[in-house]
Formats: sequence, C-alpha cells, structure tokens
Amino acid sequence: MRVREETISITVDGERIEGTFVLPRDVESDAPGVLCVHGWGGCQEQYLGVARAIAALGCVALTFDLRGHAETSRLHDTVTREHSMRDVLAAYDRLASHPQVDKSLMGLVGASYGAYLGALLIYMRPLQLLALRAPALYKDDNWGEPKRKLHVDPDFAAYRQLTLRAEDNRALGACAQFLGDALVVESGRDEIIPHPAVANYIAALANAHSLTYRMIEDADHGLSETRWETAYNDLLVNWLTEMIKERPCVEPSS
Amino acid sequence: MRVREETISITVDGERIEGTFVLPRDVESDAPGVLCVHGWGGCQEQYLGVARAIAALGCVALTFDLRGHAETSRLHDTVTREHSMRDVLAAYDRLASHPQVDKSLMGLVGASYGAYLGALLIYMRPLQLLALRAPALYKDDNWGEPKRKLHVDPDFAAYRQLTLRAEDNRALGACAQFLGDALVVESGRDEIIPHPAVANYIAALANAHSLTYRMIEDADHGLSETRWETAYNDLLVNWLTEMIKERPCVEPSS
Repeated sequence: MRVREETISITVDGERIEGTFVLPRDVESDAPGVLCVHGWGGCQEQYLGVARAIAALGCVALTFDLRGHAETSRLHDTVTREHSMRDVLAAYDRLASHPQVDKSLMGLVGASYGAYLGALLIYMRPLQLLALRAPALYKDDNWGEPKRKLHVDPDFAAYRQLTLRAEDNRALGACAQFLGDALVVESGRDEIIPHPAVANYIAALANAHSLTYRMIEDADHGLSETRWETAYNDLLVNWLTEMIKERPCVEPSS
Repeated sequence: MRVREETISITVDGERIEGTFVLPRDVESDAPGVLCVHGWGGCQEQYLGVARAIAALGCVALTFDLRGHAETSRLHDTVTREHSMRDVLAAYDRLASHPQVDKSLMGLVGASYGAYLGALLIYMRPLQLLALRAPALYKDDNWGEPKRKLHVDPDFAAYRQLTLRAEDNRALGACAQFLGDALVVESGRDEIIPHPAVANYIAALANAHSLTYRMIEDADHGLSETRWETAYNDLLVNWLTEMIKERPCVEPSS
C-alpha cells in the first residue's frame, strides 16, 4: 500500500511542536490510528520508517517531536514529564480527530521514555494497541522536576534493577489496567534499560487481551545497527498485522 | 511433512502407562522433542491431533496417559501430584533419549493440570519451549494427597482468584526461573481456570526469552467446539514455527 506524508504543527501550552501524519495514499475512513512517541534525546524523524511501515498496513500514523527536542531543543533542560505527557495527549487528540481515523481503534508505539509516556497514557485515553520498546522506568516522585534532573538521583540506576509491582509505580499501575493488545520488545544488550525493568512491564501487563514479548539479540538500546532496526520493524509489523486482522469487530477496551 | 506413529509403554513405579510417539516419516536426527501432557480427566488421545501438527513441523512429539487415566483409571482416586510428576519425568526422559531427538531442544505442551505439571518440570529438566493452555494452579500444601482430594478444599476456587507472586507458589516459582520461549493460551470463557490464575502465570514468566499470550474468545476450558480446538492448534503451530525458526544455534537454557 503506497503511503503519503503530511507535516503538521501542534500547539501545546502556547508552544508549537512539529508532527507528521503518514497515511495510505488512498486511505479509507475508519483506519486505525497509531501514535509514535520517540525516546529522550530522539526526534520524530527516527520514527518515520516505522510510521511508513505502519501506514502501509492501512493505518494512519502520527510522529511528532516532544518538547525539548528538535525545533524546541532550547527547552531540553527544563521540560518535565508533565510537559511531555501534555505533548502526548495533544498529539493523541490530533490523531484521534483525523477524519480517516477510527477513534475506537487507537494504538501507541513508543521507545524508552516514549514507551514510559505511552504506558501512562492508558490512564487518560482509550488505547487498544500498545507497543513498548525498551520501556524506561522512573520513580513516581518529582513529577514536576525537569526530566533531565531525574538522572542525577544517585538511586536512579538501582531503581531499574528492582522487582516492582503495579502498585509500586504509576506506569506499571497503568499497564495493569490495560485490556488491549500489548507488544514489549527488549534489546538483548541494552546499556540503559536492564532486564528487571522490562520484566516489571511484562508482569504488569498480565491483564492485557494479548501479550507478545520478544528480544532482539545483541541489540543495544538505540538499535544503532541497521539489522537491529530491521528486526524491530519486522516484529512490529508482524504483530500489528496479527492484531488488526484479529479485530473484525472493534470495541474500545477502555 | 508426512508423519507416523509408534505406540510405546513407559514403566513408572512398576506400573505401565501408554504413550505414542508421533514423528516425521523421514525424521532427521537432532529434531526438537515435544512432550504433550493432558489435563486431569483427559488422555493422550486428546493430544494426538496436536502431536501430529507438531510432528509435521519436524519435531518428535510424545503423548502419554498420566496414571489414573485411560488404562490405569482404577488409580484415579489415589494418584497424587507426586505420581503425576514422576509420570511426566519418565515420559520426558523417554523422549529425550529418542535417537532422533536433540535433547538440547526440548519442549512441553500441556493443558490445565498438565500445564501445571509442565511448569514444575522446569525445576527438574532442561526445557526450551513451554506451551501452557489454561494452566491450573494448586496450593503447594498436601503434595502427597490424592489429586482428587485437592478440590475438596473449601478454599480451592478462591485460591485461583488470588494475585500470587513467584514466591507464593512453586509452579509460579518455576516459571520465574524459565529462560526459554513461552506460550500461554487462555480460554475466554473458562469455567474452571479464572483469569487471575492465568495472569499469575503470565507475570511469573517475565524472565522468559520470549512470551506469547493469546486468548481464544468465547472458548470453554475443554475447547469443546471444533473451531476452538482449531484456533488453539493454529496458535500453537504458528508459535512453534516462529520459535524453531528463531533458533538457528540452540543453547540449552537451563
């Protein structure tokens, strides 16, 4: 299916962030909407390849730059998780109101910090499809602190080694409420997100309608080699194909 | 791939139980070995269809009757989990010693009580592939009591509604040690195994190399309708195909 792209601006708290719709050239109405959320230090461009693959399946994908990145990188040291969450909400709402999108079939694809934000979105908006790659985990405390400062916590790395339950962390608590279809992808040699953090997400997703967990052997956190990026795109496309096919009659799950 | 069958007897504690090898007609050596363990009240025949589908993928499958079933049904009221576990061990060892089986790539496919026993096998034998359908859960206590008596416990149904951690139950503890590839399949309308019991297994399998959890909508515990049985066989075959393909160089995980 051939795809086309359309760049947009989204206004959040008086700031403009850039986004790109990627959609089938001859899109029908009632297409699934899939929001792509990049990680900390990333940008929407990193997700264009994924968005094109998603659009080729008949979905409308939206990638966007979180505040503090790309055009608004001047905000990098001051943006908080609250700011990022509002960015995700604004992008979700823009996607859900797209005339070709079936707002009862919404998905989110996120990596690292973007996956963490995606998990939190479960509390706030209906989501049927959730794909978390190398999902980051942060303490609930200091929500309003600049995101960059969270890494200064001397306990930061140790926290990600803990076995945590849904009630111990709000992102895990959100996952425990998730009733849609979930994909979790881990990098086999992730230097940022250790396995216990990913295992916490897997365990928390035990109430999902389905759960698919896969590891990309040898891959680093950022999938810096093309073969790892390809392996991820293949996993995502295969999963999405199965999940869209399995939903002849779609009911919102939340 | 065409398959053939070979009936065998396995001696355990002086009793004979019946089994059936199902294998490709022109089997090569180093085939994966897959043990099929039926549920309480079932028999090996229920697994012949699954075993044929598994063998058609190039595996050597073994189905067998647990003591207390089929030819040894006179023992139905007296067999304990200890007896059943010894049956599973004997069948596993018979399969692992089959000349065409690569004993470094062993799998177990179990349903209900058979899935519970399969989880416990993780403690005792190397397993790389584990497929649990509607896995049952029992209290650790009274291991040596007749299996049938466990259902008399007034707390029996309530126990399966609990959220349990790996350290709360030995079958879940085994799953937490599992480093191979896991499939968990739930029946959407299971009248025997409620969702919390399945969710406990999913959460406990968070350290698996991969995890695939799927639900068969509307299905009952025993997959009494052909379409549900077909859906399960399709899930199992697709999963096994992916897992065998993904293992070009096999290393035992335990």
